[in-house]
Amino acid sequence: MNWVTTIGIVAAVLTTSAFVPQAFKIIRMRQTKDLSLTMYIMMFTGQLCWLVYGISLGDFPLILANIIGGSLSGTILGYKLFLKE
Amino acid sequence: MNWVTTIGIVAAVLTTSAFVPQAFKIIRMRQTKDLSLTMYIMMFTGQLCWLVYGISLGDFPLILANIIGGSLSGTILGYKLFLKE
Repeated sequence: MNWVTTIGIVAAVLTTSAFVPQAFKIIRMRQTKDLSLTMYIMMFTGQLCWLVYGISLGDFPLILANIIGGSLSGTILGYKLFLKE
Repeated sequence: MNWVTTIGIVAAVLTTSAFVPQAFKIIRMRQTKDLSLTMYIMMFTGQLCWLVYGISLGDFPLILANIIGGSLSGTILGYKLFLKE
């Protein structure tokens, strides 16, 4: 595996899993006031579109990344919508 | 342009520009307490890696998306690090 592929994988892992610490912070602190609802609606919808695009092309990395990413941003969106602070 | 390409472009626009409303919310409210610092460090670093990957491959959409995305997440990271609340 050359360095270009390696940096692509590092990029994918970082941008996909970046939502994990945000989800844990919300679960721990039970505060979402400073988070933008519009951001998470756009991100979740966008990741669903990426998922449909990945399925259409049969692109496994795109499918996997957006199942994980969409689950995470969907969790944050759910807390933002329904958490009683 | 077929519907698969269209949904891919919609996906790219949504996930790239999702950080815009979050940045505006921070500038307006001057509050970042509920945002995860770790998330924005990971996202910004990941987008820089995507940018290097895109430059290595000469992939223009990847370069453009990650210049925009990295500028936005970098702005949010800067506010998170330096804003006196």
